[in-house]
Amino acid sequence: MARFFRKRDKNRGMPPGSLIFIGSRKVEEIIVTIFNYDNEKVTIFPLDDIREAAPYRTSPEITWINVDGIHDPDVIKNLGETFDLHPLLLEDILNTGQRPKLDDFDSCLTIITKMLQWDEGSRKIISEQVSIILGDTWVITLQEQPGDVFDTVRERINKAKGRVRNCGADYLAYALLDTIVDNYIYIVERIGEKVEDLEVLILNNGGGHIPTAINALKQEIHFLRKSIRPVQEAILKLTKLETPLIEETTRPFLKDLQDHITHACEAVDTYSDLLSDHFNTYNSLINNRMNDIMRVLTVIATIFIPITFLAGIYGMNFDYMPELRWKFAYFIVWGLFLLVIGGMLSYFKKKKWL
Amino acid sequence: MARFFRKRDKNRGMPPGSLIFIGSRKVEEIIVTIFNYDNEKVTIFPLDDIREAAPYRTSPEITWINVDGIHDPDVIKNLGETFDLHPLLLEDILNTGQRPKLDDFDSCLTIITKMLQWDEGSRKIISEQVSIILGDTWVITLQEQPGDVFDTVRERINKAKGRVRNCGADYLAYALLDTIVDNYIYIVERIGEKVEDLEVLILNNGGGHIPTAINALKQEIHFLRKSIRPVQEAILKLTKLETPLIEETTRPFLKDLQDHITHACEAVDTYSDLLSDHFNTYNSLINNRMNDIMRVLTVIATIFIPITFLAGIYGMNFDYMPELRWKFAYFIVWGLFLLVIGGMLSYFKKKKWL
Amino acid sequence: MARFFRKRDKNRGMPPGSLIFIGSRKVEEIIVTIFNYDNEKVTIFPLDDIREAAPYRTSPEITWINVDGIHDPDVIKNLGETFDLHPLLLEDILNTGQRPKLDDFDSCLTIITKMLQWDEGSRKIISEQVSIILGDTWVITLQEQPGDVFDTVRERINKAKGRVRNCGADYLAYALLDTIVDNYIYIVERIGEKVEDLEVLILNNGGGHIPTAINALKQEIHFLRKSIRPVQEAILKLTKLETPLIEETTRPFLKDLQDHITHACEAVDTYSDLLSDHFNTYNSLINNRMNDIMRVLTVIATIFIPITFLAGIYGMNFDYMPELRWKFAYFIVWGLFLLVIGGMLSYFKKKKWL
Amino acid sequence: MARFFRKRDKNRGMPPGSLIFIGSRKVEEIIVTIFNYDNEKVTIFPLDDIREAAPYRTSPEITWINVDGIHDPDVIKNLGETFDLHPLLLEDILNTGQRPKLDDFDSCLTIITKMLQWDEGSRKIISEQVSIILGDTWVITLQEQPGDVFDTVRERINKAKGRVRNCGADYLAYALLDTIVDNYIYIVERIGEKVEDLEVLILNNGGGHIPTAINALKQEIHFLRKSIRPVQEAILKLTKLETPLIEETTRPFLKDLQDHITHACEAVDTYSDLLSDHFNTYNSLINNRMNDIMRVLTVIATIFIPITFLAGIYGMNFDYMPELRWKFAYFIVWGLFLLVIGGMLSYFKKKKWL
Amino acid sequence: MARFFRKRDKNRGMPPGSLIFIGSRKVEEIIVTIFNYDNEKVTIFPLDDIREAAPYRTSPEITWINVDGIHDPDVIKNLGETFDLHPLLLEDILNTGQRPKLDDFDSCLTIITKMLQWDEGSRKIISEQVSIILGDTWVITLQEQPGDVFDTVRERINKAKGRVRNCGADYLAYALLDTIVDNYIYIVERIGEKVEDLEVLILNNGGGHIPTAINALKQEIHFLRKSIRPVQEAILKLTKLETPLIEETTRPFLKDLQDHITHACEAVDTYSDLLSDHFNTYNSLINNRMNDIMRVLTVIATIFIPITFLAGIYGMNFDYMPELRWKFAYFIVWGLFLLVIGGMLSYFKKKKWL
Repeated sequence: MARFFRKRDKNRGMPPGSLIFIGSRKVEEIIVTIFNYDNEKVTIFPLDDIREAAPYRTSPEITWINVDGIHDPDVIKNLGETFDLHPLLLEDILNTGQRPKLDDFDSCLTIITKMLQWDEGSRKIISEQVSIILGDTWVITLQEQPGDVFDTVRERINKAKGRVRNCGADYLAYALLDTIVDNYIYIVERIGEKVEDLEVLILNNGGGHIPTAINALKQEIHFLRKSIRPVQEAILKLTKLETPLIEETTRPFLKDLQDHITHACEAVDTYSDLLSDHFNTYNSLINNRMNDIMRVLTVIATIFIPITFLAGIYGMNFDYMPELRWKFAYFIVWGLFLLVIGGMLSYFKKKKWL
Repeated sequence: MARFFRKRDKNRGMPPGSLIFIGSRKVEEIIVTIFNYDNEKVTIFPLDDIREAAPYRTSPEITWINVDGIHDPDVIKNLGETFDLHPLLLEDILNTGQRPKLDDFDSCLTIITKMLQWDEGSRKIISEQVSIILGDTWVITLQEQPGDVFDTVRERINKAKGRVRNCGADYLAYALLDTIVDNYIYIVERIGEKVEDLEVLILNNGGGHIPTAINALKQEIHFLRKSIRPVQEAILKLTKLETPLIEETTRPFLKDLQDHITHACEAVDTYSDLLSDHFNTYNSLINNRMNDIMRVLTVIATIFIPITFLAGIYGMNFDYMPELRWKFAYFIVWGLFLLVIGGMLSYFKKKKWL
Repeated sequence: MARFFRKRDKNRGMPPGSLIFIGSRKVEEIIVTIFNYDNEKVTIFPLDDIREAAPYRTSPEITWINVDGIHDPDVIKNLGETFDLHPLLLEDILNTGQRPKLDDFDSCLTIITKMLQWDEGSRKIISEQVSIILGDTWVITLQEQPGDVFDTVRERINKAKGRVRNCGADYLAYALLDTIVDNYIYIVERIGEKVEDLEVLILNNGGGHIPTAINALKQEIHFLRKSIRPVQEAILKLTKLETPLIEETTRPFLKDLQDHITHACEAVDTYSDLLSDHFNTYNSLINNRMNDIMRVLTVIATIFIPITFLAGIYGMNFDYMPELRWKFAYFIVWGLFLLVIGGMLSYFKKKKWL
Repeated sequence: MARFFRKRDKNRGMPPGSLIFIGSRKVEEIIVTIFNYDNEKVTIFPLDDIREAAPYRTSPEITWINVDGIHDPDVIKNLGETFDLHPLLLEDILNTGQRPKLDDFDSCLTIITKMLQWDEGSRKIISEQVSIILGDTWVITLQEQPGDVFDTVRERINKAKGRVRNCGADYLAYALLDTIVDNYIYIVERIGEKVEDLEVLILNNGGGHIPTAINALKQEIHFLRKSIRPVQEAILKLTKLETPLIEETTRPFLKDLQDHITHACEAVDTYSDLLSDHFNTYNSLINNRMNDIMRVLTVIATIFIPITFLAGIYGMNFDYMPELRWKFAYFIVWGLFLLVIGGMLSYFKKKKWL
Repeated sequence: MARFFRKRDKNRGMPPGSLIFIGSRKVEEIIVTIFNYDNEKVTIFPLDDIREAAPYRTSPEITWINVDGIHDPDVIKNLGETFDLHPLLLEDILNTGQRPKLDDFDSCLTIITKMLQWDEGSRKIISEQVSIILGDTWVITLQEQPGDVFDTVRERINKAKGRVRNCGADYLAYALLDTIVDNYIYIVERIGEKVEDLEVLILNNGGGHIPTAINALKQEIHFLRKSIRPVQEAILKLTKLETPLIEETTRPFLKDLQDHITHACEAVDTYSDLLSDHFNTYNSLINNRMNDIMRVLTVIATIFIPITFLAGIYGMNFDYMPELRWKFAYFIVWGLFLLVIGGMLSYFKKKKWL
């Protein structure tokens, strides 16, 4: 549950804008990589010191600065000074428990999002914070650890696939966001499969651990929703934002992006509803089965308890029990037995318990 | 459940606007048919190559280009080039898992909708994507497979029934949408009948498979809602859209269309609520029956268990049991039996268990 | 359930604006009556042919044309031609499954509503479609069958009661709507009484048919809500509509009407909530009673089962059972019986089961 | 439940604006009292005929006309004529089932509210309609019966406490409303205590009448909500209303009033939620207890039923049963008994039933 | 539950703006402390009489007046006169049951909030009212008791940490609010841990007190939500407020504050949902266990009851029972026993009860 709310003890009472890393360090060293390109050429190289990126702030080509690892406040501080970023933005980047959001600081736009992964081992969603900062000719991305998430975009830039090489920094930022949202859809599909598996289990009376399994899956869906809902909000805000940083030709792509994330959010809600329905079905089936069990018990018990009593009577040892001496008494008693059994059975038949 | 979310693995990480067919191929060959008409004459003929449709883009008559089968990205690409369509639109057409929506690309309007069918065999709703593109004098429709859905519109054009021959392309697009929405209403009626059948079953104690049946029907309703809600949104947006492509005289028809789809959506919600009510009723009836069963068991058991014990006492073989020698002991015991039975019965009567 | 959604098979695929009657014919012949009045005199007479009403379209007096029976599309078509009504409006009038709504066709306003009746026999709400068309000096009303619904308005016109004779056609339309809404309030009261009856039944443990009765009443409430909610929407729209057809002096009356229908809608929601609460109470009481039953069974069974076993031991016929020969064995066993009974009773007392 | 919806049979079909009293008459005679004051002096006197109040309509001092008892339509009619009130307003005043609301008739503002009281006997909320009409220098209040509700305001006017004597009629109207809303808060506190009492009862297993008690309290909360929600709406509308009748200096007081009623409404919602939670807790505790009961029954029954069978075997009277003759058979059987008991107990221990 | 609604009997019927303390007095004496600072120096000193603070109202440095203890209406009245505060504001400050809110009195802004603390002993949230009044160069804070809540801000002012010494009174007010909201996040984390603990308990079948524990935690969540939701509203209103009291440079900080409180509110909702899910899971597990118990009882009872009857038959003492004399009767009966046992077991296996 700690996943739902990153502990923030460290910066409680600190002045706002204090640069303190909140989260768990995932890499040894921070790696900064520069992609500098226009429609003719691409240059890719690592940077030792983020401050060396300063010239790219004003260069005419598009520059993508990717930072893997955000645990070192000094590096982030240098980045902030080099690109003139607001201290609150830097604080948000360092706080991996930050709620996804869009901020518009005139000179740049920032989107803080979550990259999700499905961990097959623990059957849980793993979340990593990804911040995207869009300037006029540059984009900065910050991740907690190096990953292959943006590899498809890298390849497109390298091989000049699609339109990325012919468009501005805003299209690059869009392409990165699009990759993240495509990944959400993949995760939602995984959740959908788990819901489907549970349904099969339930309909086959899959045992007593089902409530626990449903509960665990509900928690994943809560977590998923909590992660992507604010991203949807941020993207909606982005498509409506009036800013010179986004060109008119990029807007249809942003609308498309909005459709995708809406689709993902609706699917999450649908799966959540389906899961609730499955849970209700499960409970109802359990009740049905209890009913069956009780019915069998009741039929057997109500037939045999009275006749066992009858048998008990003639097992008594009183000196004077006239029936015991009658010749056909035993057979008469058998008749009584059969009468009681027959009567009970027909009563149960009338009640539709058989 | 895969129905709730079409897998999109194929285009994960592809550049936006990549033309990749997502879905299952339903026809062998793509068939393109041209309806060219004005209020005087109609010409109908198939096209071998979609590019031959180019002249109709500017011809003064109304032209309806119907494409059955969308699995071949090349055909769609040619279509896009011929009619100057946005690549994102083409991508949406090819993705059969696309969420229904309206897009306004100045030169044309596009509505992506779902055509629904009720499969009696599997008792499930089958969904097929239908895209409608409206230009100034032309309408393009794209379906996954040839079907009789639009036949009534074809007939009206052929026989000059209704006003379709006297109106523009916008009326044709409306007429096609109207056919699709009429079909939704038909499907909602089918769902309504299933809900009604289930109610009858529940009130007649129709057995233990009811929770499963309710669950299945709830899934169909979820699917139906997920299919037509976004269409409602799109139509609402359409009626409010300020565009020269839609003439003033067509607007009342669009408002009427909006009423129909609102009607359909509200009916889906009503059936969903009714189904939930039925489910609650079912569970309550099951509980009632359990109550009945337990009451019978308790009455029988609590009457006979104590007197069986009494009989058991006098079945003991102790050498010295004075009662066994009494002359009327046996009859006294019978008196005890009757006393216990009578007491229990009157207790149960007081408790209203009988 | 067919009540929730009128079947529309007949006009599936027909061109929009096709005049086809959807519903069940309720009268033999269509009766058209004219009320022509100003503040001085009233003329009332039947019409054989609706086309004879043409002069009243422009006459200075107020004219109310009442049509009982709408099953004949020809009559409706003639009406449409005489008063220049839009074909979609005529289609809506003929479709008795139409969702209530307000339409503003510059030259006239139309409100399609439902007249409700409580059928004591089937304990169900019966719905009849009533369409009201307001022109500048005329009002047309169309009902499925002649009824006494508008009689109070007729009387007020005849006897010049209230202000109807001194006001325009808009006040007449308001007065008719007001009668319909007053009737809703009457129906809501009936529903309220049923809810109250059910509550009494539940608190008196009124038997196993209660879930079924609650379900039936919930359906009535669903139906009621589905009928009057859209009327509320239409009336709200009417009060806000800027149209020369409604005079300023009539507006306070429309606001009052809106208060009434809001009141009715809120009462429906309240009754729906109360019914759900009663249902939960019922289920909880059933569970309580099951608890009682089980407790009695458990107390009796757990006391007598062990001592019956004890008695059973000394009923065994082994040759060598030393206790059987002891003189006071029988009394010792009785002591054991009482010990077990006493122990059990004090255990149950501690558990608060007694 | 009649409380939720005052019967209106009497004015069904009457022309709108008909003056008919709906409700139950609560006083013998209508008492009209005049408070005429400015910041220097106060005059208080009763009126025999409401028409004598006419001069106060235009007098420069502030005049408060209090009417106790509204069952006589003639008095209300005279009031209406004297102060030139709209007939629909008079109709609303007479209908004690009227939904609380604010109406702005240019020359006066009217607020219809409910005065609530907690009846300790029936443990129910009693509601009385209070109408407040605000003119430029006068305020008219109408209640169903004389009560001490406004006594604190009367005292403040008499003793010149607070600012009431220095402010206009709008402040007087505010002060009266404030008294009513303060009373709501008192009622909400009473409800809160009942909820608290129920919680204690539930946690102490307070018996089978709890569902009924919860249901009754839920109905009170429904009734309370239904009474004060529309008042909240009306007050919100009042604070936003642009009218010369309300001075700028009174507006902060209206905002404060709005805070109070919002507070009351939120508290009602909170208590409603708490009550639902308590109900769920109760049901869960009942289930737990059922579980306990069943566990005890099952443990006792499953231990003794098999060994009673064993004892039964050796109680059979077959001539040839070798074991009966064995010397140690009886003790072996006892061993068997202990074995079964031990085995069962360890099984139950493993299952954690003991 | 008294926590949900502070009793207000004391000021029922008092004129609005009456200064009456509502709550429980928490300190002996009211302590007033002055912080007077600019970016060069800081002066800190206590005040004996609040009226001595008058000069600081217009001094150019920033002045923070902190009041610990609000039980004395006279002190508050003096404060009001010195700083020209509205009487309604003073009334709100004294009413510790006041709903959090923002008020804009042109010359000053006031925010009434709640400071929350987690009491480990009672496992309950303790709430204290904190009022913040922002003027142009001064901020007044009022608390119920002296606490260390604002200590971090005091330290920042003293040591010139962060930007507080270089900014205006608006930044100081922001910093204080930020401290309060940070504290909410801490409390939400505590609640989250309790929810997590309960989940572990539930999955380990943690006993019958779980419904009670869930209920208690739900109440805490209700209380938490009730405390911070209105603060969220107030902060949202604050960020949108157009007032000269807040400088442009402070606005990004307010937006950041809004993000934090939104985050806290969403987390509360998430925990509330998780708790409901856990509750459902618990109930379902309880039902499962009941099912298990009943199944064991039924299996044992239905196997042994019939054969105990069989044994009972041959325990009867009739003179003429032919089977008793047969040589192998005893073994035949044993065969019967085994037959019944085997048949029952295979039936249960088929039913999957074993």
